[in-house]
Amino acid sequence: MHELLAQLDSAEPLKDYSVKQLDQLADEIRDVLCNLLATRTAHFASNLGVVELCIALHSVFDFRSDRLIWDTGHQIYPHKLITGRYSDFKTIRTKGGLMGYPNPHESPYDLFMTGHAGCSVSTALGLASGDDLAGQSHRKSVAVIGDGAFPSGIVFEAMNNAGELNKDLLMILNDNEMSICPRVGGVARYLDRLRGNPFYTGLKQEVARVLNHVPVFGDPTERLLAQMKEGVKAGVLGGMMFEELGFRYVGPIDGHDIGLLKKYLAMVKDLSGPVLLHVVTEKGRGYVPAEQDPVYFHTPPKFVDEGGKPVPASGSSQPAYTNFARDAIRDAMQRDERVTVMTAAMCQGNKLEPVREQFPDRFFDVGICESHAVAFAAGQCKAGMRPIVDIYSTFLQRSYDQIFQEACLQKLPVVFMLDRAGLTGPDGPTHHGLFDIGYMRVFPNLTVMAPGYSEELAPMLDYALQSDVATSIRYPKCSALHMQRKPDPIETGKAEYIQRGTDVAIVSFGALLDQALEAAKQLESEMSVTVVNARFAKPIDREMVAEVIESCGHVITLEEGALQGGFGSAFLEAANDMHLDTRGITRLGIPDMFVEHGEREELLHDLSLDVDAIKKACRGIQSTVAV
Amino acid sequence: MHELLAQLDSAEPLKDYSVKQLDQLADEIRDVLCNLLATRTAHFASNLGVVELCIALHSVFDFRSDRLIWDTGHQIYPHKLITGRYSDFKTIRTKGGLMGYPNPHESPYDLFMTGHAGCSVSTALGLASGDDLAGQSHRKSVAVIGDGAFPSGIVFEAMNNAGELNKDLLMILNDNEMSICPRVGGVARYLDRLRGNPFYTGLKQEVARVLNHVPVFGDPTERLLAQMKEGVKAGVLGGMMFEELGFRYVGPIDGHDIGLLKKYLAMVKDLSGPVLLHVVTEKGRGYVPAEQDPVYFHTPPKFVDEGGKPVPASGSSQPAYTNFARDAIRDAMQRDERVTVMTAAMCQGNKLEPVREQFPDRFFDVGICESHAVAFAAGQCKAGMRPIVDIYSTFLQRSYDQIFQEACLQKLPVVFMLDRAGLTGPDGPTHHGLFDIGYMRVFPNLTVMAPGYSEELAPMLDYALQSDVATSIRYPKCSALHMQRKPDPIETGKAEYIQRGTDVAIVSFGALLDQALEAAKQLESEMSVTVVNARFAKPIDREMVAEVIESCGHVITLEEGALQGGFGSAFLEAANDMHLDTRGITRLGIPDMFVEHGEREELLHDLSLDVDAIKKACRGIQSTVAV
Repeated sequence: MHELLAQLDSAEPLKDYSVKQLDQLADEIRDVLCNLLATRTAHFASNLGVVELCIALHSVFDFRSDRLIWDTGHQIYPHKLITGRYSDFKTIRTKGGLMGYPNPHESPYDLFMTGHAGCSVSTALGLASGDDLAGQSHRKSVAVIGDGAFPSGIVFEAMNNAGELNKDLLMILNDNEMSICPRVGGVARYLDRLRGNPFYTGLKQEVARVLNHVPVFGDPTERLLAQMKEGVKAGVLGGMMFEELGFRYVGPIDGHDIGLLKKYLAMVKDLSGPVLLHVVTEKGRGYVPAEQDPVYFHTPPKFVDEGGKPVPASGSSQPAYTNFARDAIRDAMQRDERVTVMTAAMCQGNKLEPVREQFPDRFFDVGICESHAVAFAAGQCKAGMRPIVDIYSTFLQRSYDQIFQEACLQKLPVVFMLDRAGLTGPDGPTHHGLFDIGYMRVFPNLTVMAPGYSEELAPMLDYALQSDVATSIRYPKCSALHMQRKPDPIETGKAEYIQRGTDVAIVSFGALLDQALEAAKQLESEMSVTVVNARFAKPIDREMVAEVIESCGHVITLEEGALQGGFGSAFLEAANDMHLDTRGITRLGIPDMFVEHGEREELLHDLSLDVDAIKKACRGIQSTVAV
Repeated sequence: MHELLAQLDSAEPLKDYSVKQLDQLADEIRDVLCNLLATRTAHFASNLGVVELCIALHSVFDFRSDRLIWDTGHQIYPHKLITGRYSDFKTIRTKGGLMGYPNPHESPYDLFMTGHAGCSVSTALGLASGDDLAGQSHRKSVAVIGDGAFPSGIVFEAMNNAGELNKDLLMILNDNEMSICPRVGGVARYLDRLRGNPFYTGLKQEVARVLNHVPVFGDPTERLLAQMKEGVKAGVLGGMMFEELGFRYVGPIDGHDIGLLKKYLAMVKDLSGPVLLHVVTEKGRGYVPAEQDPVYFHTPPKFVDEGGKPVPASGSSQPAYTNFARDAIRDAMQRDERVTVMTAAMCQGNKLEPVREQFPDRFFDVGICESHAVAFAAGQCKAGMRPIVDIYSTFLQRSYDQIFQEACLQKLPVVFMLDRAGLTGPDGPTHHGLFDIGYMRVFPNLTVMAPGYSEELAPMLDYALQSDVATSIRYPKCSALHMQRKPDPIETGKAEYIQRGTDVAIVSFGALLDQALEAAKQLESEMSVTVVNARFAKPIDREMVAEVIESCGHVITLEEGALQGGFGSAFLEAANDMHLDTRGITRLGIPDMFVEHGEREELLHDLSLDVDAIKKACRGIQSTVAV
C-alpha cells in the first residue's frame, strides 16, 4: 500500500524521484497520517499541511549534511516518515516509541527537540555561523517556521542578528493562517496582505529587472525618482518588512505544488545571505473535515473516518482541571468587571473559547508571545484591572523575566494559571511542566499554590484575585479528583488536613493528593496515616510542617514536579528554619532528569509517584525510578 | 543657580513655560547632571541625551494622569529632576536615597521600575487597555524606548499585539545610535536609513496628500498604479516596517529642539491608534567629551571636570571577577579555535573589548536579545563550537526558556558566565543577580558552579569547556579574593577544603568565601573552624556534606543569592537524601525580599552576610536582617 515509503531507509533517493513519484509519496504520507488518527490523539492538520514542503525540501537538500530545523516540531511527521522511520511510525507518541517532535536520539536528520516555538531561526543561524567557523560552509541551514510561531519575539531577535551577520540562512515561512487557534496581531495582517499578492510567476522578477535600469541621479528630483523606484519594488515585490531587516524575500509560492517548490528551493539554495521564502500552505490539506476545521483537527481526539466523516472513537472522560479552571475564570469575570484573561495561542488548549465568546473585550489572545502577555497583564494590573495569565507551565518559562520585573518586583497581583503543570503525557519533555514550583518560588512577592482536588480550584482563584501580590496556581493535565466536600476556606499559607493519623504523614502539593488518599486508604489496616493537602508551596504552612514532623516523625512530601528546589525542598527549608529534625522526611517527586513521553499514568508509575510507590514510601521502602 | 528647578514641586508648571524657559530648564538639568558625575558613578550620557525630550513630554502631557514608561529606566534623571525630586537628587544611587531607575515608591510620576529593557511597549499597551476597560480612556499612554532596547523580542511582540488591538498608544523611539555599546543588527541598519531621511518639515505630508488623490481603479494596470502609490509613500514617508505592523510612523524629528518636539507631541497626542514617533537624539549631548565617547560616558567612573576635560577622580581598585573572567575567556579562545563568546550589549560591562578586537570572528554581540543569544549559542554548539554566553545574572532570566529547551534538553555544553551574580550595588533591585542558583539548578543537564577566589575562575571555565553538559559559572561585581595558592584541580561535584576544624564548618558557595575566611581567622582563638569552598551547587559534593555535618555538627552555608531554592537548600536536599541530621545547619543568604540599592558592602552588612554576621552565626547567634 505504501510502496515508496516502505522502501525509504533515508531521504536520499528523493533527489532522483520524478515529481509524479513525489506526488505519490505525498499521497502515501497522507494515508499514513489519516490512519494514525484512528488509533490515537496526535498532531494532525499541521502535518497534512507540510507534506509537499517536506518532500520538496528533502529532494533538494541533503539533511544528513545540511541543517534543517522544524519550528514548532509538531509538524515533523512527514519528515519522520521519509527519513527511515516509516516502520516504527505506528509507535509515535507512545511510551518507548517515536517522539511526536524532532528527536536527535532517533535520527541524524533531527537536530533539535523543538516543542517551544520560535527558536529555529536562532539555532539555524547558530549552525550556519558554527559551520562557517568550522570550515564547513558548504552545509546549508534551513529553518521552517509557521506563521503562528513567527511573531514570537525571539524570531525578530534572530532576524535582526541574521541581517547583521549576513550568513547563508534559508528561512521558510510556512504560512497557513493558523497558530493552533486563528492567528492574531499586526504581523498576521501583514502576512494576509502578502498572501493577497498573486503567486510568484516570474512577472515580478521582470518588473524588478526593468526598474533596476531606471537611472539614479544626484539632485532632489532624481532622488525622489529613486525613492519611487524602491517604493514600487516594495509594493510590487512585497516583503519590505523582511527586506528592511536584511533578508531577501521571495514569495509567496504555493506550498502544495512540489514542482514549483523544488524550483524555488533550488534557486534560493544558492543565494548568499539570509533569505525568507514565503510558502503558503493549507492546514489539514487533503482531509476535507480538517481543511474545514483546522482548529479542532490540530490535535483531535482519536477518531474513525466513516465515509469521509470523522466519528470520535471514545466518549469523554471525567472533567479535567482545565475545565474547572476555565469555569472558575468565567465565574470570576462574571462577578468582577475588573477581571481579564490573557493567553498565548492556547485558547483551545485551555478550553477558553466560551470565555472568549462571552467576554470578548476582556479576553486577550496575544499569540505565541508569552513575554508580552505577562508584561501586558502587568500594565493592565497597574491600571486597576485583575488580569489572569492562563499559560502552560513550560511555556511560562518564556516570560520568566517579566514575572520577575513586571509582576513581582512591582508587587502587582497578576494571577498565573499554570495549566499542564506536571506530566503532560504523549507530548513529552518539551511539554511536561516540571520546573515551575522551583522557578516561581525563588521570587519575592509571589504566592505559589496548587489545588489538590476540583472543588478548591475556584476558591484558590478567588483568593488570588483578592491578593495584593502575584499568585501562581498550578495543575496538571488530568481529570480532577472530586472530593464531594466543601473545601476549608483558603487562608494565606495554610494547609488543609484531610485526615489525621499518627504513624506517617503524606503532605501532598497538588493533584497527586488523589494518589495519596488512595495509598492512605489501602494502608488503613497497617498504619495510621495523616494526609495533608498542602495548598501553598510559598508561603508554606510552617505550623503544619512542625506538626507533622512532631506528630508522625515519618513524613512523605509529594509533588508532580522536579525535586530540585521544589515543594519538598521548601518543606526542608521551613523545617531547617525551625531547627526541626528532617531525618524522617522522604521527598517524592521528579528526579533530576528530563522525562520522555508516555501516558501520565505510565510515567507516574515509572517515576515512583503512583499509589504503590507512595505506599512503599510510607512503609519506609526506597523505590527506584525506572525511567 | 537652578532657579527653575528649585521651584518645581511637580511637572505641572511646564505646560505654561515658554520655549525659552524650557530651554533654560534644559541648561539647569545639564548642569545638575554634570555636577553629579563629580561625586559618583552614575548613568550620564543617556540622561544628557533626553533632556529636551523629557521636558517636552512633561509640557504637553500630564503624567499624573497620563501614563509614561521610560525604557530602559536609566535615562530617568531629568524626569526625576522635574517631578519634584530636585532637592533629593544628590542622594541618587546612594543607600536610602533616590533610585537610579524609575521608582513608584518615590513618585506617582513613576509607574514601573524598569532596569531590564524592552518591556515598556507591553506595559504601556496594558495600561491603555486597562484604562479603556476602566472607562478612563482619556488617559494617554506613552512609552519612550531607546534604539538599543528596540530590537528586544518583546518589543516586536508588543507592537504585533498593539497593531491588532488598535489602542491609542504613543511609542517614542529615542534613537541615539547606541545601546550602551554601539548598536548592532538589521534593525539598526534600518534605523540608520530612516535617520538618513531629512528631518520632518511638512513636505512629506504634502506629498502624501497629493498621492492620496491619485485615483485607484479596478484593473491590473491600475492596481499596479495603486501599488506604486503605496510604494512611493513607503519610499518617501519611511517607516514602512512600523506601518506594516499597524503603527502610524512620524519622523524622524530633532530630539533637541523643544519647540519642534512640543509641536509634534501635541499633534500625535490626538491621533487615534498606535503611533511611533521617531526622535533623533545625541547621547552625551551638551558635554563635549561625552558626545565624543558615549560608550565610556554611559556610566563613567567618578570624575572631575577640569577646563572641559574629565579627570577620573580615583585610582583603579583591585581587579574584579569581571577582569579575570574576560582573561580566562581570552585565554580559552587563544588555545581552542572552537571557543566563541556571545554577549547581549554587555561588551563594555563585561570588559570584553579586547576579546572583540583580538577575535572579531568569534565574538558575537547580538544586542539586547538574550533569548536569541542562548539559542544562537546552542546552534553553534551543535555545529561543534564551544560557545560561552557572557551575560549578567539578572538579564539571563530573559533566556530562561532557551536555557531549558535549546541548551539543557538537547544536552548541549553551552557555558554560561553569569556576571553581576550577587549584589550589584547602586543599580538596585532590577540589577542584583540573586535568583540564578535557584532558577538554574532546577534543570537537568546543567552544572552550577561559582568561584571562591580569582585563581580558580580560569580552571572552572576550562572545566566547563570540557564538560558534556551545560555549565553556569556565577560571580558578583566585586574585586576578587587573591588566594596566592594554586587551586585544587576542578573535579565534578567536588568541593575544596580551605581549612579543617572541628567546632563549626562554613561552607561557602562563591565569592563570600573571602568573608568566610576572614571570619574564621578572627574566630581562631575561640573555635576551630572548617572552611569549605563549595565550588558546585549542582552536583553538590555529597561526601563533603556528610563529612562537615558529621565532623562539626554546626554548619553554616553561605551564598550571595536568594535562600529560597538556593545553595543552602541544595545542601539540605543532599543531607536529607542521606538521612543526615540537619538541625545544626544555618543557611546564610538573601532572605525573601527584593534588595534596594546601596554599596555592596553596605548591603552585605544589612543582610547579615558580612564578617561580623558570619562570626555571630558561628557562635550560634541569630542575626536580624536590617534592610
